[in-house]
Amino acid sequence: MENGKRPKVVIVGAGLGGIWAAKVLANAQVDVLLIDRNNYHTFLALLYQVAAAELQPENIIYPIRKIIRELPNVSFLMAEVENIDCEKKLVKTSREEIAYDYLILAAGSDTNYFNIPGVEEFSFPLKTIDESIFLRNHIISIFERAVEEHDEIKRKKMLSFVIVGGGATGVEFSGALSELVHRLLLKDYPMLDMSLVKVYLLEASDRLLSAMPENCRDYTAKHLKMMGVNVYFNAFVQRITKDEVYLRDGGLIQTETVVWAAGVCGVSFAKKLELKKTPDNRINVLPTLQTVHYENIYTAGDLAYLIDEEVGRPFPMVAQVALQQGALAAKNIMRHLNGEPLESFKYNDLGSMATIGRHLAVAKIGKKTYTGLFAWLLWLVVHLIRLVGYRNRVIVFINWMWNYFIYERAIPLIYPSKTAPNSKKNI
Amino acid sequence: MENGKRPKVVIVGAGLGGIWAAKVLANAQVDVLLIDRNNYHTFLALLYQVAAAELQPENIIYPIRKIIRELPNVSFLMAEVENIDCEKKLVKTSREEIAYDYLILAAGSDTNYFNIPGVEEFSFPLKTIDESIFLRNHIISIFERAVEEHDEIKRKKMLSFVIVGGGATGVEFSGALSELVHRLLLKDYPMLDMSLVKVYLLEASDRLLSAMPENCRDYTAKHLKMMGVNVYFNAFVQRITKDEVYLRDGGLIQTETVVWAAGVCGVSFAKKLELKKTPDNRINVLPTLQTVHYENIYTAGDLAYLIDEEVGRPFPMVAQVALQQGALAAKNIMRHLNGEPLESFKYNDLGSMATIGRHLAVAKIGKKTYTGLFAWLLWLVVHLIRLVGYRNRVIVFINWMWNYFIYERAIPLIYPSKTAPNSKKNI
Repeated sequence: MENGKRPKVVIVGAGLGGIWAAKVLANAQVDVLLIDRNNYHTFLALLYQVAAAELQPENIIYPIRKIIRELPNVSFLMAEVENIDCEKKLVKTSREEIAYDYLILAAGSDTNYFNIPGVEEFSFPLKTIDESIFLRNHIISIFERAVEEHDEIKRKKMLSFVIVGGGATGVEFSGALSELVHRLLLKDYPMLDMSLVKVYLLEASDRLLSAMPENCRDYTAKHLKMMGVNVYFNAFVQRITKDEVYLRDGGLIQTETVVWAAGVCGVSFAKKLELKKTPDNRINVLPTLQTVHYENIYTAGDLAYLIDEEVGRPFPMVAQVALQQGALAAKNIMRHLNGEPLESFKYNDLGSMATIGRHLAVAKIGKKTYTGLFAWLLWLVVHLIRLVGYRNRVIVFINWMWNYFIYERAIPLIYPSKTAPNSKKNI
Repeated sequence: MENGKRPKVVIVGAGLGGIWAAKVLANAQVDVLLIDRNNYHTFLALLYQVAAAELQPENIIYPIRKIIRELPNVSFLMAEVENIDCEKKLVKTSREEIAYDYLILAAGSDTNYFNIPGVEEFSFPLKTIDESIFLRNHIISIFERAVEEHDEIKRKKMLSFVIVGGGATGVEFSGALSELVHRLLLKDYPMLDMSLVKVYLLEASDRLLSAMPENCRDYTAKHLKMMGVNVYFNAFVQRITKDEVYLRDGGLIQTETVVWAAGVCGVSFAKKLELKKTPDNRINVLPTLQTVHYENIYTAGDLAYLIDEEVGRPFPMVAQVALQQGALAAKNIMRHLNGEPLESFKYNDLGSMATIGRHLAVAKIGKKTYTGLFAWLLWLVVHLIRLVGYRNRVIVFINWMWNYFIYERAIPLIYPSKTAPNSKKNI
């Protein structure tokens, strides 16, 4: 750096925060290295549609190298980050050690199991493409097995699906699952009594979509119920076993499928980092997004913990915050390099939305709220625009129209059970 | 059967033979059960395009339950067939035992490794969706690793790809791989010297596409060479290790990737069956497609071995034979039930075709042969028509046009490395 070498910025994580940071740093007088464990970026907002067989996995992921083709000073390393030596300014990866001058940690979040017994072992998280494929396979497999299950009690247990957590993921997935079962699978399994199928949505508080205004929350609960989803409020999961969900109030649901959408925490590798963190493993940052002890380490997105002074609560772990923080971290690095004062994070809240089912959604934009068909169309347009890649947009649009007009979901197949047919050849 | 019960026909395998048999038996006075290990039918002719990142896996598979929705007397069981008790007329599956009156074995073929040392252990077969995904992941991973490999000899070994077998699969895949590397990956890995990439096609005889007329064979070899594929004739593989291919003539190729497309044999479960078989595990059938000792057991497709008396050679293991044999087996069962004489198999050869690359293909239809753009367009149309499912056709068409005009393949992503993120939950 001192001797004229261009400063090196390493970005950990190619989610929205990492990608936006890279875009801001493109063409600046720095060398940027983006590191991710996968060679693709995932559009997390549509994972639930993959799990519900509405979209195919490839539709919502995009190759990182294709994104950075337009960014001449950005390169990519596919590797798992193992640790960071903040003193020596080194990122230790599964492949090699990388030196940095500036670091942006944008590695996102993992599912939070809250140490509730059995949850990590027996429930299905829904945070990655792998997990969404695995959940879909599990659901379709259950129907294949239920056809041949002659014990009514066992069949009823198989056909009970429990979703824990009434945030956007839980709401969207329970609606999508209900439609999958009662509209599509109905045709493929005419021998099954679909009235045996029960979808439960368990929420620990007294409200769904807690960030939404009351009219949207009520609309959501009412329509989910109309779609056959059993919405339970104040339902605390105490323990999960292979076959049962135990609730704190003594309730018991027999099921083989618990989808855990009850919360997230900082990614697990962050545990090892010698940085100031919250109990749920998020990194405390200054308003400039710098970490508390290292001015050259920034954190953006779900992994960053920062109190929004205006409302006295931390900024939410949502896409827009990640994207805006990624951009600000990059800008602040450039300001730092230029000796300019750094700026504090200001969240430009563009609103939020959630889809419940076919032409049913809720949206809040500014002070206004929308429900029903208009909100659903808005949801479609916003998600199509945000999807990376023109071909993805075209194919997702066709899929959605097909689902809508022909009422056939994408292929409800049980995906190849192993991508490594010959494990001896595993790299 | 005697007491008025409808006869039960069990079909093992939902490939072309099995599906066509089920279609012929639809609406007949029989109950049909189709058994397959997967819940989807695979269009095998396009597997190589999945491996070469031209198409996504879902584009070429189709749910079996969706196919049989229109067939009222056909049901489906997803299970692995383990054995058959021909005397007691029972199919033993991983799920349950199934009694049959008539049986159609249409379970297809497996890769034939010819007991050559190291081949099964270290080469990549290309016969299933799983295998095509795995091969694609391996190829893209190699490029990701090659970027960080600073030892030139190791990098050269990584970037050498060997395809064994100059039949349709070997020809089509080596052409597609060459285009993937020299046209698409070139853009994503500008830091790699692509002249280090070598694609070898090894053929044990002196000709590619041996069933084709000479002009098509010559055209194929010439254009593959122009595309940078090193075509070696009379090249016998003697042994494969993790890093090397040893040829009988003393030749040695250092590589991490050997794609084995040198031959097929009857599916492995057929080994256990007490039926007359060939050394390569195919079941000998009478011209009526009945097995030699059991008149109620029929075999169709790759698994059936029958000499074509007109040419003195067995019928080829190709899609059209499978489809026509599946239909004939079903018709002969109906004739048998009605006390009518059975018919012998007559192959209606509709021709054959293979694609080499972008607007390069060869086709033989009747006595006529076609090469180049016209053959390629013919190939596109025929394969689009044969693909099951309207949505698949639309999306494959868009993908092909996109590849053609924009020269961007579908996503060259490294697919989720495990579909079971939490192995404890494996069913």
